[in-house]
Amino acid sequence: MYRNRSFAAVILATGLWSTGALAAHGAHWSYTGEGGPGHWAELSADYESCGAGRNQSPVDLGAAVEAQAADVTFHYAATPLKVTNNGHSIQVDYAPGSYIELDGHRYDLKQFHFHSPSEHEVDGHSFPMEGHLVHADEDGNLAVIGVFFESGGENDTIRSVWQHLPARAGESAEVDGEQVDVAGLLPEDRAAWRYNGSLTTPPCSEGVSWLVMKAPVRVSAQRIAQFHDLMGVDNNRPVQPLNARVVLE
Amino acid sequence: MYRNRSFAAVILATGLWSTGALAAHGAHWSYTGEGGPGHWAELSADYESCGAGRNQSPVDLGAAVEAQAADVTFHYAATPLKVTNNGHSIQVDYAPGSYIELDGHRYDLKQFHFHSPSEHEVDGHSFPMEGHLVHADEDGNLAVIGVFFESGGENDTIRSVWQHLPARAGESAEVDGEQVDVAGLLPEDRAAWRYNGSLTTPPCSEGVSWLVMKAPVRVSAQRIAQFHDLMGVDNNRPVQPLNARVVLE
Repeated sequence: MYRNRSFAAVILATGLWSTGALAAHGAHWSYTGEGGPGHWAELSADYESCGAGRNQSPVDLGAAVEAQAADVTFHYAATPLKVTNNGHSIQVDYAPGSYIELDGHRYDLKQFHFHSPSEHEVDGHSFPMEGHLVHADEDGNLAVIGVFFESGGENDTIRSVWQHLPARAGESAEVDGEQVDVAGLLPEDRAAWRYNGSLTTPPCSEGVSWLVMKAPVRVSAQRIAQFHDLMGVDNNRPVQPLNARVVLE
Repeated sequence: MYRNRSFAAVILATGLWSTGALAAHGAHWSYTGEGGPGHWAELSADYESCGAGRNQSPVDLGAAVEAQAADVTFHYAATPLKVTNNGHSIQVDYAPGSYIELDGHRYDLKQFHFHSPSEHEVDGHSFPMEGHLVHADEDGNLAVIGVFFESGGENDTIRSVWQHLPARAGESAEVDGEQVDVAGLLPEDRAAWRYNGSLTTPPCSEGVSWLVMKAPVRVSAQRIAQFHDLMGVDNNRPVQPLNARVVLE
C-alpha cells in the first residue's frame, strides 16, 4: 500500500509532525475510546467548543431552506505534491495562489484532507468518503468546501495522492516534479448546501463557512477501502445538532 | 414618571431581584465603563462567549440573502401585568400559555423587555428603541422576536407598561386586575429577518433563533425618552460581526 520508494519519493518524518505539531495542537484526541468525539471537550480547555459550542460541524444537511445561491468562484491551480499522514487523516498541503471568492471575499486554499465514512449526512444517509478543502482569509476566517465521494469509477486527483500515502502517522511524502490539482476533486455541478459551522476536529473552532457540494464525486471502492484501512478507524465525527441554524440550498 | 402609587400597585423590592438574581447572574456588568460591552468577557468565566463567540448578537441586518420565509405563527394571550426594573432594562414577565411555533416547533413566551437605542441595525441605521420577546422551548432553546420602534403615534401595550415603570433597579410593580397583551407590540406585517445568534447580554449564550420584524412599530417620542431617561444610559450592545453567518429575508 505504501509505494513511495518505488516513486523515489522523499519521506519526511520530522519533529514538526511526529511530536511538535501534536504537542502544539494540545491534548491527544482520537475517533474511538477515551479520546473519542464524546470526550473531546474534556481533554483540554482549548477544546471547550467541542462540547459547549452551539454551532458545530458536521450536521445533517437534509432539512435545507431554499435561498439565493452562494456566490462562489474557484481559482485553483496545481500544487507540488506533498502528502502527510497526520494520524487523523491524509492531508495535502497547498502552495499559495489557489483560492475561492465567496460573496466577493477571498479565501486561500491551505490544504485538503479526507474522512471515511463521510462526516456530513443527507437525511440520515452518509457517503463512504468526504473530502474537505480548507481555505482561510487574511484574518484567519475559515471557509471549507465539502465533497462527498461515492464508489464507482476513478478520480485522477485521488489516484495521484493515493500513490504516495505515508503509512505511519507523522510522515510526509514529497515527490519531486509531481503535481496535483485540487480542482479534480470538485463535481461538475457546483450546486451546494451552505451553512455556518465549525472545524470537525479539536479545537472545534466555530465561525467556519461551510459549502458542501450536492453532487457526489466518483472514486473506486478500492481507493476508499485503501484510505479507510490506512486510518484503521472511522475518522468521522458524528453529526451535531443544528440548534438555531438553517442550512441553505 | 413613577406612578405606581396612584394606581394602587404593589411595589416589590425582593431579594430575588435586588441581590439574589444579580449574584446568580454572576459578575456585575453594565453598558458603560469598566463593566461595559467591550469588557464583558473579562468579568467572569461564564461570560466567555461575549468575547470568543463567533455567532453573537446583535448584528447589522442589511446584507440579507433572499430565502424561503420562516414558518412562524403567533399564539399570544394577555397576561397579568408585572413590570420589573432589573437594572439593565424594563422587563414584563409572561404567564404560561403564550407561544410561537417556528418551523413547527413550540417556543413559549417567557418575557419581553426593551433597549434604547435599538441593538440591531439595518445598513448602519439604528432605531430609537427595540423590544425583545424572549421564548424558550422545553429544552431551553431560545427564540427571540425583535421589534423596532420609531417615534410618532402611540402604542397601547407600551402605554400600559410605561404607566408602572419601577424607578429603581431591583423593583417590580404588579397591578391587580390589569393585563397587558404582547401581541400589541407586533407590526401588522410580520415579514422578518432571520438569523442565528446569541443573547445580547451576559452570558451572551449562543444558539438563539432570531426573528427581527422588518416593519417598525410606532410609539411616541415621549415614551421612548421616558424609558431612556429611566435607564440613564444607552442600554444597547454594539453590533457584532456576522462571521460565517448569513441573514435571511
